[in-house]
Amino acid sequence: MTDEQKKFMQLAIDLSRQGMQAGHGGPFGCVIVKDGEVIGKGFNSVAGTNDPTAHAEVVAIRDACNRLQSFQLEDCEIYTSCEPCPMCVGAIYWARPARVFYANTRKGAADAGFDDDFIYEELKLPTNERSIPMIHSHTDDAQRVFQEWIDMENKTLY
Amino acid sequence: MTDEQKKFMQLAIDLSRQGMQAGHGGPFGCVIVKDGEVIGKGFNSVAGTNDPTAHAEVVAIRDACNRLQSFQLEDCEIYTSCEPCPMCVGAIYWARPARVFYANTRKGAADAGFDDDFIYEELKLPTNERSIPMIHSHTDDAQRVFQEWIDMENKTLY
Repeated sequence: MTDEQKKFMQLAIDLSRQGMQAGHGGPFGCVIVKDGEVIGKGFNSVAGTNDPTAHAEVVAIRDACNRLQSFQLEDCEIYTSCEPCPMCVGAIYWARPARVFYANTRKGAADAGFDDDFIYEELKLPTNERSIPMIHSHTDDAQRVFQEWIDMENKTLY
Repeated sequence: MTDEQKKFMQLAIDLSRQGMQAGHGGPFGCVIVKDGEVIGKGFNSVAGTNDPTAHAEVVAIRDACNRLQSFQLEDCEIYTSCEPCPMCVGAIYWARPARVFYANTRKGAADAGFDDDFIYEELKLPTNERSIPMIHSHTDDAQRVFQEWIDMENKTLY
């Protein structure tokens, strides 16, 4: 990482400490950078907002997308204090930034008491073998809605 | 599924059609049920809100958690019109409901133009081999914050 990139990573780490100390949630922070400027930031706010999706990366992605008024983070870099959990990796893929830098690893997160690695393993299982059962129930009308989407004109793809 | 469960699934499918037709986003809907009562609902709102994380399941989880004032969906059932993408599976694991029912599959989602299956495959790769590069950069201070979390008393675990 360049010195500038190290500076952005330190900002993410500072946010992780700040959010943790204030009781917003776990020790995780994130900043999003475009053209050398911070356009989004967040720390884990699960406990503070009663929102299980309020991980640092998700909070920062929402913040940056709101600022850009776009659901795409084209040419952006994400700096996060820890390797993203599967939820956050998914959020990153949907937002499509250029790259992600992370400091702590999922192994470190597991040692600190966070389930990331467990969720990575669960995702590899067929839905009906997961510890939270996910039960497929085919419904003709749901399939029809997909066909209506395929046939729809002037839709926004994402 | 029981007749009551089929009714909840139809509500999720109705939401998927409603959100799609109104231009909020893709053809996905979700309801969350506790003790036979709908406590959260959502449709995909990615395009309408410029939020790439606003999938039906995430919107419904946030809605239900806000209603319960809890980041846990204990004893809840999630009905979603399509098999959840990895982001939403992650969100579900963090929220910890009892079970999930889904109608369309990830294969159907791929046929309708959604990247879910691609993201499932990417998650299996080492971070540095993913198509969005995820670059590990060890930082002593990030590790210190984890140790501070481990040593912290009176923290909220999630």
